[in-house]
Amino acid sequence: MAKTEAKPSPFAPARLPDMPVVPGVRFATCEAGIRYKGRTDLMLAVFDPATVAAGVLTRSKTCSAPVLWCRESLTHGKARALVVNSGNANAFTGKKGNEATRITAQAAAKAVGCTPAEVFIASTGVIGEPLDAGKFAHLLEGLAASVKADVCEAAARAIMTTDTYPKLATRTVEIDGVSVVINGFCKGAGMIAPDMATMLCFMFTDAAIAQPALQAIVAQHAETTFNCMTVDGDTSTSDTCLLFATGAAAKRGQKPIADAGDGRLAAFSSVLHDLMRDLAIQVAQDGEGISKFVTIEISGGETWAAARRIALTCANSPILKAAIFGEDPNWGRVVMAIGKAGEAADRDKLSIWFGPHIVARDGVRAAEYSEETVAAYMKGREIVIRADVGVGTAKATVWTCDLTHDYVSINADYRS
Amino acid sequence: MAKTEAKPSPFAPARLPDMPVVPGVRFATCEAGIRYKGRTDLMLAVFDPATVAAGVLTRSKTCSAPVLWCRESLTHGKARALVVNSGNANAFTGKKGNEATRITAQAAAKAVGCTPAEVFIASTGVIGEPLDAGKFAHLLEGLAASVKADVCEAAARAIMTTDTYPKLATRTVEIDGVSVVINGFCKGAGMIAPDMATMLCFMFTDAAIAQPALQAIVAQHAETTFNCMTVDGDTSTSDTCLLFATGAAAKRGQKPIADAGDGRLAAFSSVLHDLMRDLAIQVAQDGEGISKFVTIEISGGETWAAARRIALTCANSPILKAAIFGEDPNWGRVVMAIGKAGEAADRDKLSIWFGPHIVARDGVRAAEYSEETVAAYMKGREIVIRADVGVGTAKATVWTCDLTHDYVSINADYRS
Repeated sequence: MAKTEAKPSPFAPARLPDMPVVPGVRFATCEAGIRYKGRTDLMLAVFDPATVAAGVLTRSKTCSAPVLWCRESLTHGKARALVVNSGNANAFTGKKGNEATRITAQAAAKAVGCTPAEVFIASTGVIGEPLDAGKFAHLLEGLAASVKADVCEAAARAIMTTDTYPKLATRTVEIDGVSVVINGFCKGAGMIAPDMATMLCFMFTDAAIAQPALQAIVAQHAETTFNCMTVDGDTSTSDTCLLFATGAAAKRGQKPIADAGDGRLAAFSSVLHDLMRDLAIQVAQDGEGISKFVTIEISGGETWAAARRIALTCANSPILKAAIFGEDPNWGRVVMAIGKAGEAADRDKLSIWFGPHIVARDGVRAAEYSEETVAAYMKGREIVIRADVGVGTAKATVWTCDLTHDYVSINADYRS
Repeated sequence: MAKTEAKPSPFAPARLPDMPVVPGVRFATCEAGIRYKGRTDLMLAVFDPATVAAGVLTRSKTCSAPVLWCRESLTHGKARALVVNSGNANAFTGKKGNEATRITAQAAAKAVGCTPAEVFIASTGVIGEPLDAGKFAHLLEGLAASVKADVCEAAARAIMTTDTYPKLATRTVEIDGVSVVINGFCKGAGMIAPDMATMLCFMFTDAAIAQPALQAIVAQHAETTFNCMTVDGDTSTSDTCLLFATGAAAKRGQKPIADAGDGRLAAFSSVLHDLMRDLAIQVAQDGEGISKFVTIEISGGETWAAARRIALTCANSPILKAAIFGEDPNWGRVVMAIGKAGEAADRDKLSIWFGPHIVARDGVRAAEYSEETVAAYMKGREIVIRADVGVGTAKATVWTCDLTHDYVSINADYRS
């Protein structure tokens, strides 16, 4: 089968955001030739001393060597460097995979002047292929010598695999009257059903916040952002979401926040949530083969977790996703997905909307349902499906894309 | 989007089995014009007095009106008739749906000369469309007058929807030296991930077995046959699996079996399991858009249920199923699916085989792995993927098909 050249997602932004500098964070990238030719595939981020890292990692039972490494480094949360390669996930590579991670961390530590434990590592690409760190570890010294603060977009591009565009987001927020910045970027397009965090997401801030407080809010927001997004229900071996906080804003007068209960954290937390939601939606919008961006909103659930599970069951239903691709308002498939989710739902109180149009009320087709009107709505590029399952008051929202011929082509390609 | 004419499954049998007569069972079919034109869509089966029914029904929270009706009739298990229509599932049709089922049962009861509670009903087709029983209830009297014993295949054809062939199986077994027959047929091709039983499966025997004993073995075998099969992970609102036993073999000297613990049940139970497995595999082999039939065997699981869950997670992974369609031995995706299943698995003891070829052993690619050899194996029509997850001794086998362009086309078709 011939290699499919993925078309850019129709949701690729017309213009990428201008990413401001985050004091204390610098990047460098290069072409290490790990798998791809003619593009960057190795990224180094260097952080000023006193930077802390918080994050969440995949719950996969077959997680990659870098995930295990980061889990260990997160126990202390001190960070001086981040090394990411694309083209090879270093997953299911056994003891040699752990060794490759260790060699990379040691080389980065030497180049940056820190301990290996202060280096965070992520790898993305093919699973099961041994990763030879010897092929790129020697490049880290040169990268460390050439890091710059204003090359965030280049860093985001170096970690892409089947992504059709780099997913970038930036926000600012005040703490103690001091403006701090949060930058973030993400990669991921297929094998996306995060179970703690999406494929790879890196965020950077100059806020001065202690690691435990940062960890608490990142973990909390991952649940309602990345963990509410799916492309194909296939949870990766490598999901990694990390936030690095350099604390550089302290020099400009921000008094460090030590505690998760500190009221000054509220605005930062809210803005961080907004940025993580933005990135999660960007991943869904670059879902492999996407033609339509789909939002599923479930209300009337017993609990938030139940509502999210029902929403994710809809979002992962191949037969519903194919109907959306076909612009068919086939709401019977929403009924099916709600029924199979395994959570409480009252068939005879169920109501369903496609966009602003009610299609079913109290367990039967709505009297005012017009097939023509709803079919016209399905021709739009962004589809919102809402359902009330009639058993409680909890709500959850999930983002996904449709199931298209291009998804099949991209993943049927020999070792895409 | 133009209507896709589904190509026959490459696994359609060259010749359908000759179905012997089951004493005490007769069928009739007709074109009621419920949705389809130019084909039969209504089937009546009539059973001799003293027939008992056993079965399992979907666990969907949005189950259809006929499923609710059958659940009620199974409480006593007496059966004189079975009415099945295709083209409309009578699911998510509220009180009117229950009313349509009641009208159908009453008409069938009058035509056959029994009580409505002795009538079993199943409907399959579009969800959410009101079913007007008035359009076909009057036909049941004529059908009852024309039932024949030797038209099992015609009955199987009348209940098809997107199936490309009728799925039939027959077995004989001796009880007390008396040969009894078990016939069965099934429909289902998409929205298939049975959660108790597949879409619709009807089986018929002349064995004389009490209802509670029959119920016990049908429920038990459904777990290891239909509930080990998936096309797309989408559990239907209408899954129904019923076995009708007329007891006619008693006239030929079979002493009735009253108890599930009766040793004479063993051979019958074993043959029934074989027939149910045969039908389950036929459903997977007619999976919408199928190009390859896939068997997933998981060993080394903590429990059978854990092994089955891991196998089903592999069988429902869109990214793995698309790789199989692409003939790519992408075993990294097997690693991913095992990791996300949520059951215990030891990454560093994991071994994987594609057909007879080992691809990974003890958590890394096997030394003897030959990409060329395994790629050649993937060109075959039947693919067996085996994995040992290294934590216990339990094994489970699951049957499925690949994810193809035709699956997307069939389900993207406007209201297929």
